[in-house]
Amino acid sequence: MERKGILLVVSGFSGAGKGTLMKNLVETYDNYALSISMTTRKPREGEEEGKAYFFVEEEEFLQKIKEEKVIEYAQYCGHYYGTPREYVEEMLYRGKDVILEIEIQGALKVKKQFPDALLLFIMPPSAEELKRRLVGRGTETEQVIKQRLLRAVEESEGIEEYDYILINDRLEDCVEELNNLVMAAHSTPARNQEFINNIRKELKSLSKGE
Amino acid sequence: MERKGILLVVSGFSGAGKGTLMKNLVETYDNYALSISMTTRKPREGEEEGKAYFFVEEEEFLQKIKEEKVIEYAQYCGHYYGTPREYVEEMLYRGKDVILEIEIQGALKVKKQFPDALLLFIMPPSAEELKRRLVGRGTETEQVIKQRLLRAVEESEGIEEYDYILINDRLEDCVEELNNLVMAAHSTPARNQEFINNIRKELKSLSKGE
Repeated sequence: MERKGILLVVSGFSGAGKGTLMKNLVETYDNYALSISMTTRKPREGEEEGKAYFFVEEEEFLQKIKEEKVIEYAQYCGHYYGTPREYVEEMLYRGKDVILEIEIQGALKVKKQFPDALLLFIMPPSAEELKRRLVGRGTETEQVIKQRLLRAVEESEGIEEYDYILINDRLEDCVEELNNLVMAAHSTPARNQEFINNIRKELKSLSKGE
Repeated sequence: MERKGILLVVSGFSGAGKGTLMKNLVETYDNYALSISMTTRKPREGEEEGKAYFFVEEEEFLQKIKEEKVIEYAQYCGHYYGTPREYVEEMLYRGKDVILEIEIQGALKVKKQFPDALLLFIMPPSAEELKRRLVGRGTETEQVIKQRLLRAVEESEGIEEYDYILINDRLEDCVEELNNLVMAAHSTPARNQEFINNIRKELKSLSKGE
């Protein structure tokens, strides 16, 4: 049976542990592919083309938007960041479940273009725990932490738009739960139409004694 | 956090192994309760009241239908069979995931009254395997097997009405997959509104430095 991949859009508060979670998911199961973003910012030292990002000039980026070769994009600190369509569609076609890690505005744009996409929102076990994790990084000033929390308040307004929430408490549990949500999505009749049609045909011929 | 139970409606072809699957599910996990049907047929030897069935007189059954104390019912071989509402609602309220094993017409009636119900359709790995299982019972004539297959053809027409299909190949895998589908359903934002509201409130107060 042919298995088409699921487009998985993952959002969550800064500090909820999305990055680590995605890394572990991809390492634990072989059915996932991380989407690679395209950006107009310059590569930092050690950043390879096509690993964390595809690096392009602004002109090329704008051209790709025009040609609808970018699923969604946003501007941040004067640079463009976006999701190239070709890589995502190619991976889905090959049966991979493709992960996009983007914030809510992007998530909703993706859902419009891919109504079958699965939208997941990663949450910390509590707001206190989120703050602990942000403070624990030790790299942020109190002011920055406050801003992140304010941003989390904003982002939390959109949670109801997502298909599932996922509470990131113990990492290994969360990786398994995330995979279970994707497996569940693969079990809908719509995603198994070929199997259903085949069994119908077989049942018909068996019931006729063929 | 309060956890409301999910109403789980399970259908599937005769021979798909629903009964064994439900028995194993209930034995393996403690969050499930099997709904107990009510019937007007007389108890067979060894059948205890309130175990496989609640046994009632026809007059009482009809009265309960009138009072909407039966979620769904059907007539079979001159007897009534139905699902008493009170037991199901009591178990859901206590946080149990309640299993109803009924055929498609009943399943659709339940979905109308409980729009949040999760509808699962259990399938054999193939039509050939279904036939093997029916023949393997050794208790059915060829004629009966053919009737069952014909009935399966009819039932298969409704599969798209279900939320999920589940392929019963290896029993233990299938029990686990079924539980995963229910866990996924518990992860929707709608079923975690209290948790989401609390974290919003906490984030707001933390971001204000309270």
